[in-house]
Amino acid sequence: MSRTPKFGPAPDPALLDPMERASLDELRAVQLERLKATLRRVWDNVPYYRSKFEAHGVHPDDLKSLADLAKLPFTEKKDLKEDLRKHPPLGSNLIVPLSKITRFASTSGTTGTPYYHAVTAQDYRMWLETTARCFYGAGFTPGRDIGIYVGAMANMFAVGIYMSGTLEYMGIPAFLPGVEAGSERTLRLIHDQGIITALYGFPNYVHYLGSQSEKVLGIPASRLGIRKIAVGGEPGVRTMREALQSTWGAKAYESMGISEVGMMFSECSEQNGMHWIAQEFILPEIIQPETAEVLPLEKGVEGELVVTSLSKEANPLIRYRTK
Amino acid sequence: MSRTPKFGPAPDPALLDPMERASLDELRAVQLERLKATLRRVWDNVPYYRSKFEAHGVHPDDLKSLADLAKLPFTEKKDLKEDLRKHPPLGSNLIVPLSKITRFASTSGTTGTPYYHAVTAQDYRMWLETTARCFYGAGFTPGRDIGIYVGAMANMFAVGIYMSGTLEYMGIPAFLPGVEAGSERTLRLIHDQGIITALYGFPNYVHYLGSQSEKVLGIPASRLGIRKIAVGGEPGVRTMREALQSTWGAKAYESMGISEVGMMFSECSEQNGMHWIAQEFILPEIIQPETAEVLPLEKGVEGELVVTSLSKEANPLIRYRTK
Repeated sequence: MSRTPKFGPAPDPALLDPMERASLDELRAVQLERLKATLRRVWDNVPYYRSKFEAHGVHPDDLKSLADLAKLPFTEKKDLKEDLRKHPPLGSNLIVPLSKITRFASTSGTTGTPYYHAVTAQDYRMWLETTARCFYGAGFTPGRDIGIYVGAMANMFAVGIYMSGTLEYMGIPAFLPGVEAGSERTLRLIHDQGIITALYGFPNYVHYLGSQSEKVLGIPASRLGIRKIAVGGEPGVRTMREALQSTWGAKAYESMGISEVGMMFSECSEQNGMHWIAQEFILPEIIQPETAEVLPLEKGVEGELVVTSLSKEANPLIRYRTK
Repeated sequence: MSRTPKFGPAPDPALLDPMERASLDELRAVQLERLKATLRRVWDNVPYYRSKFEAHGVHPDDLKSLADLAKLPFTEKKDLKEDLRKHPPLGSNLIVPLSKITRFASTSGTTGTPYYHAVTAQDYRMWLETTARCFYGAGFTPGRDIGIYVGAMANMFAVGIYMSGTLEYMGIPAFLPGVEAGSERTLRLIHDQGIITALYGFPNYVHYLGSQSEKVLGIPASRLGIRKIAVGGEPGVRTMREALQSTWGAKAYESMGISEVGMMFSECSEQNGMHWIAQEFILPEIIQPETAEVLPLEKGVEGELVVTSLSKEANPLIRYRTK
């Protein structure tokens, strides 16, 4: 991933987190150390994981290398929901005292009951750092950009809290109208302030917002000064990119995450597919969805993403199937 | 103000900010020092204030004591709006570089155009600390309470951002559905989680929310476990207190602030009128509204509140009339 922005000089290399500059060997060592600690923690503290490991005939000490991860059982969303049902209100997987929890976040809840999970200061920091990497990938630059967040703010939707907090974390002054402000008020805000350059939101809404500019303001969105757009949370960005870019006269970049896990993928200035940006926080695997066979992480490989959290305090996830 | 909660042992006195334990002499010294620095800053940096001071024949050096504040001219909301019109987008009163700004907040905008103002990290911290004093006044206690925020989250409404951030600042785990989640989802959340004890919102909505419990959950709100309610943002709390308390089976406490200034007043466990809780951040005066005569700050005095900011970085306010 490059943080070289498209609209000005390169930002200070000090903005890069040390883990982003680590060699592959250094990274693998950190990943293995964190994975061992995570497995020990869930074995000691989460009956759900312990009984599953036992039924599978594995013990945390069996893990000698990252490849040994394949010996462990998968976790599915239905397992977590079942655990929440058995251990209300927050599941047996919470494993931190309430005093360590800063807030509770929620999946969007658009399909069925929203699923609440706890977030510690360390967990929140992981979200901020991975989201910041997505924004850096889109060229958002402290000291040069002023940001606006037009995604969901309300309803405890986790990603809304994280996305808006990330601009503050990066040192980018932020307007946070959220999608709830509506297109007219948001367009007037962008126009009247005249200083906003970097925008984040869901791609379909960002496109709709830009398409309303002529009607609301009498000028096209391309004259509003937005130069960098990061979008995520919905599929299909690749097919929408040209429409987004021509509507706003800006570069548009895709990013991707899962609310119960973190931000994981982001494009860079090349706009040529997403990079894995959660290297020290989340360990990825790709499996064949029907047989659950682990596939090699090679260029062009296709399958189901499976993730294991390496630093999550409140709700560690082991081999979590994302489909 | 007492932080002795009504439902358990007293919290650690270390929770009190040193300025809350300062003697009146110590406090007056801090106020005078900060006032002098504020006047010097606006004289040097804000043409609006400088020309107004000059027209009034006063100079920052004329201020020798807190009583000399009365020599300075008033600021009215229409003055700020006029300055914003002349110096778009953020007014001549911004006086910090954009790099110091963390976010932009807004008045609610329910009457007319919303008024955006900038917030630095220091300004935000002032909001968190004064709001925390209101919540402590209502007995919210880190390590014992779990909070829920049911006021406005969206639309950059400043107080929504501050109120929800304050629970994190205090170390109280927080659910943040906001008023936008709607009464049914919020009541189910409180019921299903079963661990939430402290609630903040606007009094009319908090009362409405409680009144819907029988219909939504089949049980009265008084059985939901909420024990402490802090309300503000709307007048008339005193006449609603009994209704709030009997509906929720909880103690209800009033607090008050202004979005462009800060939180200023809060009740304590005695529920017998509000205390001034912004002592080192905001300097209050009471004036006779027609003659603008400064009235003595004595028990029973009535008039218009005039405030001067003592630590505000981005938009200092000098003798700001609040009516």
